[in-house]
Amino acid sequence: MSATTQLNIGLFGFGVVGKGLYDVLQNTPALQASIHKICIKSLDKKRSIAAENFTNIPGEILNNQHINVIVELIDDADAAFDIVKAALQNGKAVVSANKKMIAEHFEELLALQQEFQTPFLYEASCCASMPIIRNLEEYYDNDLLFSFRGIINGSTNFILTKIFQEQLEFEKALLMAQQLGFAESNPQLDIGGFDAANKLSILLAHSFGIIAKPAEFIFTGIKNISLQDALVAKGKKYKIKLVANAQKLADGKLAAFVLPQFVTKHDELYHVENEFNAITTESSFADKHFFKGKGAGAFPTASAVLSDISALRYNYKYEYKKILIQQASVLSNDFYLKVFVSANEIAAINKDDFEWIEEWHNEYHYCWLVGIIHVKKLAEHDWWKLPGVSLIAYPDAVVENIDYKNISKRSLELAGIV
Amino acid sequence: MSATTQLNIGLFGFGVVGKGLYDVLQNTPALQASIHKICIKSLDKKRSIAAENFTNIPGEILNNQHINVIVELIDDADAAFDIVKAALQNGKAVVSANKKMIAEHFEELLALQQEFQTPFLYEASCCASMPIIRNLEEYYDNDLLFSFRGIINGSTNFILTKIFQEQLEFEKALLMAQQLGFAESNPQLDIGGFDAANKLSILLAHSFGIIAKPAEFIFTGIKNISLQDALVAKGKKYKIKLVANAQKLADGKLAAFVLPQFVTKHDELYHVENEFNAITTESSFADKHFFKGKGAGAFPTASAVLSDISALRYNYKYEYKKILIQQASVLSNDFYLKVFVSANEIAAINKDDFEWIEEWHNEYHYCWLVGIIHVKKLAEHDWWKLPGVSLIAYPDAVVENIDYKNISKRSLELAGIV
Repeated sequence: MSATTQLNIGLFGFGVVGKGLYDVLQNTPALQASIHKICIKSLDKKRSIAAENFTNIPGEILNNQHINVIVELIDDADAAFDIVKAALQNGKAVVSANKKMIAEHFEELLALQQEFQTPFLYEASCCASMPIIRNLEEYYDNDLLFSFRGIINGSTNFILTKIFQEQLEFEKALLMAQQLGFAESNPQLDIGGFDAANKLSILLAHSFGIIAKPAEFIFTGIKNISLQDALVAKGKKYKIKLVANAQKLADGKLAAFVLPQFVTKHDELYHVENEFNAITTESSFADKHFFKGKGAGAFPTASAVLSDISALRYNYKYEYKKILIQQASVLSNDFYLKVFVSANEIAAINKDDFEWIEEWHNEYHYCWLVGIIHVKKLAEHDWWKLPGVSLIAYPDAVVENIDYKNISKRSLELAGIV
Repeated sequence: MSATTQLNIGLFGFGVVGKGLYDVLQNTPALQASIHKICIKSLDKKRSIAAENFTNIPGEILNNQHINVIVELIDDADAAFDIVKAALQNGKAVVSANKKMIAEHFEELLALQQEFQTPFLYEASCCASMPIIRNLEEYYDNDLLFSFRGIINGSTNFILTKIFQEQLEFEKALLMAQQLGFAESNPQLDIGGFDAANKLSILLAHSFGIIAKPAEFIFTGIKNISLQDALVAKGKKYKIKLVANAQKLADGKLAAFVLPQFVTKHDELYHVENEFNAITTESSFADKHFFKGKGAGAFPTASAVLSDISALRYNYKYEYKKILIQQASVLSNDFYLKVFVSANEIAAINKDDFEWIEEWHNEYHYCWLVGIIHVKKLAEHDWWKLPGVSLIAYPDAVVENIDYKNISKRSLELAGIV
């Protein structure tokens, strides 16, 4: 494609993002892109534009020689993969926002792009409007990048903000998010941490060259976070955020996880509220960068799709430098985390999994402790994900070497109480 | 150049940035880039590396067939332009951090790149480590981008931070900045606003496709900002930042200026302190983005130079899309600004230039007013830049239409006092 090529788009899905995209493209002729045909599940539903724009037969788009770009905006990850695969095989450029599909099929999608030399862009899959994939891919060399951390799920950040600002219980905050359109009617992907884990999976590939499915690192969501947890955090002058973490260990391997985390007011992420997303990067020489933008909603998502469409006109494609050319990093679960764990009853916390416990609190139907735990224990056991138990990482949670000499006498005494 | 091509660099200048770059390249073989020869003014000065690395004859680098990349890191803008011109003509890729040279010769440099099809990258020229040029160039389409605002000079932000935090007079804050290495021994380029204006000039090209020298928009620095101004700002719950502004007017033309500006605590820029730089963008659908990073210092600058060198391996070059392909915006000085102006004596303020004045204060040796002024008046007159006079833009300073009906009776009365 050259900068003067007209982009004829075949669109899959006509939800809020798809509809928004259609409207924008109608009004921005400079982009030289227009939607030629839209594939939807049901032709019976009344639509805001003429019926001849629609089809329910994917092949009418996928086999149409006139269409050179496929934009995939459907919910179903399996169906989406079939569409993207067929499109790439047919030599059509593809733009997608489907993080679940991309995280689950990363290797196959990479192989398809290489085999058929067709561009596949998906900036909208991570942090909606923010150009974070492109920046990680293009700007931060693997050998110089030390870490990134981020709030990469807007719905859960909205819920956590409401729990803190209005002292709501989780269920009420979730309901509010749903009423305002910031959470799906089935919110399990968001509140269970799956969405953030899918995004971290994609970001790991573009930042450190690691192809890893969510099952390969530890993650959880926020559905067990109680108002009591929030009050303890407040007492310690922290907020709780759902944070995706990726940082190089001393041996060069990479620690990666998605967990609720205490953040201090000196952390940029502390000030990121509601549906906003944000990423901080740390790299040699460049030091810390901070990037914030809207991470949820139809318009921010449509804007990233638009930017990808625009980039196709300039022959942009991901080079996958970190994977294909540079020395990729390797994921490691060989590190410790400093965590806060709370539960309705003591028995729900597997104390034996901890290396040590340095703070301990017990009251009627609510107990919590602060301790150091090896990540392999978290990967092997699931008591910390069960209903009634919250696990929240501490600020600077990653601990590489436990120095037993540094355990204060008081900590040992407290641990003794356990 | 292909991703496997070895980059043989000819370096001009061996100051802190050049030296840092040399060290990094020695230690990162994965970049496949090494410095072949370094051109410096004087061979007499004792250097930390072997003498055979150096020459004082530019031609030894510019005519060396083995060298395929020129990195230009010298102070002198005129000499730098000659080097860059010769390098591009000789088919060598060029990386530079010299904002003054680039802003002053933008059109010639663009023409050279087109004629000789050689890439010229200069991410380090704006906001040091932050990839702001690339993001404006690649990600934000002109038709969708509404505005950007930013703190793009680290030295002045450091000085303003000290004035506010430690209630220092300007001269003392400047001295502190110089002692800590955040300001040049000759700081006029920074504190006079010239450096920020050069950067805005470069950013305008990559964001809105406007090629404009600093003389074509209004700008000033911070050297007239007094501790008294800072105290008035504090009383109004503002901070003062030196802000580069670019925003589309209702007619589609662009308002652009660099002025000290009052910022409220709801403005992301309020929280950007010391030598940090930051940019906010506003665009259709994507809404607001905020990007913050270190904007001054040898390492942040070297990191951007490194990223450009790395990008050359992947054949990256600026497409200058906004200028060459998309519909470029046009600069306009046909708008009003709401400003605060202070002076040692009333006579120093040209009250007749104001459309109206809505607040007025006078005390012994210090008076100030808040009013609306047309930018053409600021462009034509220079009373507001003279020693003893400070002009500070208000938050949301751009006023497109003056509705005289909205002037409150009190404002008119106050103006009457004038």
